[in-house]
Amino acid sequence: MIRSLYYQDGQEIHTQLAIEDFKPALENTEGLLWVDFEATDPQDDEPIMLDIFGFHPLAIDDALQESHVPKLDDWGNYLYIVLHSVVVDKNIDGQLDTLELDIFVGKNYIVTHHDQSISAIERVWDLIHRDYRHLKNGADHLLYRLTDEVVASYMPVVETIDEEIDRAEDEVFDRPTPETLEKIFTLKRATLHLRRIVGPQREVLNKLARDDYAVIDVRARIYFRDVYDHLVRMHDITESLRDLVAGSLDTYLSVINNHMNDIMRTLTIITTLFMPLTFITGFFGMNFFTPTTPLGIWTGLPAYIVTLGILILTPVAMFLWIRRRGWWK
Amino acid sequence: MIRSLYYQDGQEIHTQLAIEDFKPALENTEGLLWVDFEATDPQDDEPIMLDIFGFHPLAIDDALQESHVPKLDDWGNYLYIVLHSVVVDKNIDGQLDTLELDIFVGKNYIVTHHDQSISAIERVWDLIHRDYRHLKNGADHLLYRLTDEVVASYMPVVETIDEEIDRAEDEVFDRPTPETLEKIFTLKRATLHLRRIVGPQREVLNKLARDDYAVIDVRARIYFRDVYDHLVRMHDITESLRDLVAGSLDTYLSVINNHMNDIMRTLTIITTLFMPLTFITGFFGMNFFTPTTPLGIWTGLPAYIVTLGILILTPVAMFLWIRRRGWWK
Amino acid sequence: MIRSLYYQDGQEIHTQLAIEDFKPALENTEGLLWVDFEATDPQDDEPIMLDIFGFHPLAIDDALQESHVPKLDDWGNYLYIVLHSVVVDKNIDGQLDTLELDIFVGKNYIVTHHDQSISAIERVWDLIHRDYRHLKNGADHLLYRLTDEVVASYMPVVETIDEEIDRAEDEVFDRPTPETLEKIFTLKRATLHLRRIVGPQREVLNKLARDDYAVIDVRARIYFRDVYDHLVRMHDITESLRDLVAGSLDTYLSVINNHMNDIMRTLTIITTLFMPLTFITGFFGMNFFTPTTPLGIWTGLPAYIVTLGILILTPVAMFLWIRRRGWWK
Amino acid sequence: MIRSLYYQDGQEIHTQLAIEDFKPALENTEGLLWVDFEATDPQDDEPIMLDIFGFHPLAIDDALQESHVPKLDDWGNYLYIVLHSVVVDKNIDGQLDTLELDIFVGKNYIVTHHDQSISAIERVWDLIHRDYRHLKNGADHLLYRLTDEVVASYMPVVETIDEEIDRAEDEVFDRPTPETLEKIFTLKRATLHLRRIVGPQREVLNKLARDDYAVIDVRARIYFRDVYDHLVRMHDITESLRDLVAGSLDTYLSVINNHMNDIMRTLTIITTLFMPLTFITGFFGMNFFTPTTPLGIWTGLPAYIVTLGILILTPVAMFLWIRRRGWWK
Amino acid sequence: MIRSLYYQDGQEIHTQLAIEDFKPALENTEGLLWVDFEATDPQDDEPIMLDIFGFHPLAIDDALQESHVPKLDDWGNYLYIVLHSVVVDKNIDGQLDTLELDIFVGKNYIVTHHDQSISAIERVWDLIHRDYRHLKNGADHLLYRLTDEVVASYMPVVETIDEEIDRAEDEVFDRPTPETLEKIFTLKRATLHLRRIVGPQREVLNKLARDDYAVIDVRARIYFRDVYDHLVRMHDITESLRDLVAGSLDTYLSVINNHMNDIMRTLTIITTLFMPLTFITGFFGMNFFTPTTPLGIWTGLPAYIVTLGILILTPVAMFLWIRRRGWWK
Repeated sequence: MIRSLYYQDGQEIHTQLAIEDFKPALENTEGLLWVDFEATDPQDDEPIMLDIFGFHPLAIDDALQESHVPKLDDWGNYLYIVLHSVVVDKNIDGQLDTLELDIFVGKNYIVTHHDQSISAIERVWDLIHRDYRHLKNGADHLLYRLTDEVVASYMPVVETIDEEIDRAEDEVFDRPTPETLEKIFTLKRATLHLRRIVGPQREVLNKLARDDYAVIDVRARIYFRDVYDHLVRMHDITESLRDLVAGSLDTYLSVINNHMNDIMRTLTIITTLFMPLTFITGFFGMNFFTPTTPLGIWTGLPAYIVTLGILILTPVAMFLWIRRRGWWK
Repeated sequence: MIRSLYYQDGQEIHTQLAIEDFKPALENTEGLLWVDFEATDPQDDEPIMLDIFGFHPLAIDDALQESHVPKLDDWGNYLYIVLHSVVVDKNIDGQLDTLELDIFVGKNYIVTHHDQSISAIERVWDLIHRDYRHLKNGADHLLYRLTDEVVASYMPVVETIDEEIDRAEDEVFDRPTPETLEKIFTLKRATLHLRRIVGPQREVLNKLARDDYAVIDVRARIYFRDVYDHLVRMHDITESLRDLVAGSLDTYLSVINNHMNDIMRTLTIITTLFMPLTFITGFFGMNFFTPTTPLGIWTGLPAYIVTLGILILTPVAMFLWIRRRGWWK
Repeated sequence: MIRSLYYQDGQEIHTQLAIEDFKPALENTEGLLWVDFEATDPQDDEPIMLDIFGFHPLAIDDALQESHVPKLDDWGNYLYIVLHSVVVDKNIDGQLDTLELDIFVGKNYIVTHHDQSISAIERVWDLIHRDYRHLKNGADHLLYRLTDEVVASYMPVVETIDEEIDRAEDEVFDRPTPETLEKIFTLKRATLHLRRIVGPQREVLNKLARDDYAVIDVRARIYFRDVYDHLVRMHDITESLRDLVAGSLDTYLSVINNHMNDIMRTLTIITTLFMPLTFITGFFGMNFFTPTTPLGIWTGLPAYIVTLGILILTPVAMFLWIRRRGWWK
Repeated sequence: MIRSLYYQDGQEIHTQLAIEDFKPALENTEGLLWVDFEATDPQDDEPIMLDIFGFHPLAIDDALQESHVPKLDDWGNYLYIVLHSVVVDKNIDGQLDTLELDIFVGKNYIVTHHDQSISAIERVWDLIHRDYRHLKNGADHLLYRLTDEVVASYMPVVETIDEEIDRAEDEVFDRPTPETLEKIFTLKRATLHLRRIVGPQREVLNKLARDDYAVIDVRARIYFRDVYDHLVRMHDITESLRDLVAGSLDTYLSVINNHMNDIMRTLTIITTLFMPLTFITGFFGMNFFTPTTPLGIWTGLPAYIVTLGILILTPVAMFLWIRRRGWWK
Repeated sequence: MIRSLYYQDGQEIHTQLAIEDFKPALENTEGLLWVDFEATDPQDDEPIMLDIFGFHPLAIDDALQESHVPKLDDWGNYLYIVLHSVVVDKNIDGQLDTLELDIFVGKNYIVTHHDQSISAIERVWDLIHRDYRHLKNGADHLLYRLTDEVVASYMPVVETIDEEIDRAEDEVFDRPTPETLEKIFTLKRATLHLRRIVGPQREVLNKLARDDYAVIDVRARIYFRDVYDHLVRMHDITESLRDLVAGSLDTYLSVINNHMNDIMRTLTIITTLFMPLTFITGFFGMNFFTPTTPLGIWTGLPAYIVTLGILILTPVAMFLWIRRRGWWK
């Protein structure tokens, strides 16, 4: 789907221009044209980008093939920017998906290209229909609104991951299962993924806030600086999350070993209490001691009382010894 | 609550100026105005900041929304600074809370904004009432006092965490419980949190101590340098704490395994001593050996004495073998 | 095998030039000569490189001896570049092999040297036979095509490793065996190997995209920049892979301990249930209780019923106690 | 204790000047004054430093309050330097103490301040009494001697820690106890502490060796460079020590698990050998087989011989099976 | 042993000059003098270095005292360089020794100092006797040959360590013993040691290849660049080795735990199979069931057959249950 939007100061917004109308719109340096390619066929897009906008073939290649890290290329009279929006897959908790957004920004136009619907784009599209002011400040301000919305989409994701880590930790302490481990591992992957996007994206915004570009007005830099600050914070949090996930993995092992310790302690206590007793009962179960033998005295009443005493005292002694070693809790 | 304070050399301090009095106060370049917004309604603050002080909408947005990392933005004739004060939550040990403090500094005014009462603000507020000297040196010196007090609030927190780690370590060596593990994990989170604030805060102070700002007198830099040095030290300690917490986690696992080793050793010793004995008693408990059979010789007195001997010698031999393997301690 | 290719604008491609034809071909600044040494004898190559192309002895030494990290040396009127192509050994999964490719680039020639057949070379060789355009743009563009193909050979390798890690992780969670561990270790080695090549290669491309070289046209830089971006992405992924492999190793240990926990729990439950029972049966198996003794009352019917009750109640009580400790699942 | 020392070329050394003599001594640019404050009352020191030497209040504050990281502040006509000397606490092995040394260096004076006796100070004090040459080269050369001695005090400490780690490792391999673990942890703390001091101290020396200061002669830089090189080496060793300590912790766990493996193997062997035997003896101990029943044939001589055979063959078979699994060593 | 060598273009090499001949040799700027101090008495060396060559006392101190990290000091008309040659101790596998080599290079002389025989020195000494060309290019070229040989001595060491790690890994997977653990730890130390030398040495060569020194001809830099590239590769490999050693340690723990898992599984299976059986035999061994009691029906033939059935079915049921839990392999 190709949709477009044209605005000139003091006039109504035109939407859904025909492709033939792009060229004249571009020639009017007072207007502002936004063309949005969503899930289009690359073969349709290429001639528009090449012939009407005159983008470099390499930049078009980059835009039409997905899977790039966020980056910014300065092509003189336009910028080519790759951003990533991020969504959490609701079905699998902690699973992260990123949507690539390619942006070309010129003095009086902005071209966006993406394979799937991106909520940031929709929000800006609706916003400028409600409020023309955002168009008055030119293409660089529109770019600011786009980057701001894309970056804003990170926060809920980061928060979701943070909460999931919290929940995983609680599970680790309460009842660690192999599923908890799988969850932690998924969160590890998500955090690594996030870090791999936030880092370069931060660099893109840093360049926009700091460097000199023909199409970015000096006064607009302060706005990109603001988005950059958000990304810096996000990056710091991501680093912390990564550290916490690693800590969860270590903790899991410790908790499991703790449980095993408990279990072994019980096993040992039971064994320590009953093994000597079983030996004693076995001793008097030997056929030396059947009453008909000359060893009959061994199974007389006095021997019986002594044996009973031993059977009672042995576990008491064992119990005291165990408690002294601090195994009873 | 909005409170304000106005000082002009040689005059008394005016407190609680009406909002209408801010404008004339600002126009007097000889005076010094401090306006403090505490837990106010953003909708009340915005017009004051925008219309009276003329701050940039972006800076106001940043100030009124919380949750920013410490940063410094130079807006030419004023600076916008975000600092974080830190408090330890008394109820949950090791849990850390940070309070954001937004500061605007101009040539002859300082505006502070925070959502909760911050002790550093209170201490400076009281201090300048007792001693006017701190006001004589202008807004930059007042800023120095504020940063100094904010940073001073870190030291007890760092020390608390250090002590908690010490205590956790002692617990790990003495009697490691799952609660110890949870404590270590809480400390890990606190340390990561601290690091995430101290790092950027250090950068803010570094800029104040090094860079050229219209509103900061060159002679004041040495003071910010001093605060910066404190933060450098804090940062180094934080790094060490993080390393120690990670070490505690490893140690916990080792101690737990050590205990398990002890327990297993006991289990094995008991089993090794009594299992062969039980077998021997079982052997002579078989019905082959009841005295009425032709195998009666097996249960005669000589066999009895030999058996008794075996029952005594077996554990002795086992015990010697165990000691040779170094399991008895 | 030495093969060569000569192209002059508007003429046919000459292939398989005699060694004597290299010199005149080089003298024509309008033409483009490509000489490819594959698995040749160093003693044959040296005089050609030294006398005809006039390369520095050090550069020739580097080219003829294998095992260098990717690098770029600027020798003024030519560049010496070492790249590494990468292949996965099909027999051993996850095992990585790298093929060194030495390239000399001058204004109107390119010399490639490698010990084994490299698919990237073949692809470019075939491409330029099909499409002369790639030769029209000179030696630097040919170099771009070569680097692009070499780097393109990384992606399937990285993807293979990524999938292998995924599979190894699944194995870890499903049924961890020592073979899984060996596999993870092989993947670790592969990832480290990859990182050791991608890092310096990225630097080579960065230099080509950024620095000023006599033989690289300024307009060609943007192409190297594009290859550089691919390598940056590859490097980021490699870092993530390394982190994931380390995580797999940790997880393996946790899963193994989890299993052991299960096993020990069963052992403990069985022991806890049956040890007391065995003691009781042993108690009544002692010869005090044979019916012919005065203790005969102990083996009467009432005692029998009480004993049976104990034998049934003991495991029930033990079972309840175990369940309360959360060991039954 | 305040002690002082004054030297003028061609004259005797004056020691123990009265406080009133400091001022005239300072005014003579040809002389060299050293004032050493050891464990003095801050309230006594402050007026001397402020009024006689004219140090900045901030620098005096820093000097009189302990607990700073090593640093260097350039105050124009004097430098304020914080160094740390290091001592090992003999009572607790591996426990590290640092002694802060504050130094003010001017053109013709040096002021040292410390709370405890520092051996480096004593050594330099004695040295200059024996050999005036060290005073002839001015205050910067005296500073060099002080830094050199302070840094020299690190080497034995680093070596002690290195040896302690070696010893701890040997203990880990020979007989790992919880005390070994505590020792390793103490060494970890010591190493972290050392790193936290050596790093900034290295920076101080780097500044002295590289930067331009009014009170440091250009020709003296080479001497500070020499001390700097020592610190670089110390820093590298400290990093290695840290890595080794971390390795010791991992090794400890492995060794403990190795031992546990041994213990469990023994337990399993004993259980595997005797459990089936005990069952067989139990089987023939059942009252079905008492000779007076019709099942008497089961306890006849032939059955006896078969049973004996089984009792002997079972452990042999079990033993062979165990050996085949490689558990017997 | 002091040995020397003097060469002047077109003349024979003079060896074993008397110490008195050094001065005139140095004055001839056309000649090239090499003096090699091997295992000499520092007191003999100092006057030669100080009076004849005029080196700075600090540099001489550094040269005569061993134990420095590789470094390069520029003293204007000569360079002082510390390099480290490396040898593997044949007796203890993986144990590393480094030999310090101090080099002074001037315009027309080179002075080497070392405490033990270094093979790199011997190889260069022999080489220049066979081939004067290496002397024709001056002192800087001779320095290149020395650094090249020293660095060449690293490769076999790195390869030995790499193979040892491989072997240790194989041992870990095949039959991990505590000796394997000690070996891994020795390799860890060796790798850390290597890293501590290669890093600074790389820096020395980087300076020689990049910086401007009076005694190094600009055209010689490319040669040092070549040695530098070797060290970069060595450094990368060393980093990988370090990572692999750390991985081996983790793997060791996993393999040990895997074994323990196996052992525990066997123990649990044996216990699970025989404990219930032993209880049943114990049950019928109780004296309630001797045939002379009214409970005789319990030990009649029907009861006997039922009991036998239970004794056979119990292990079968247990076995099926165990197999369902996946413990039988």
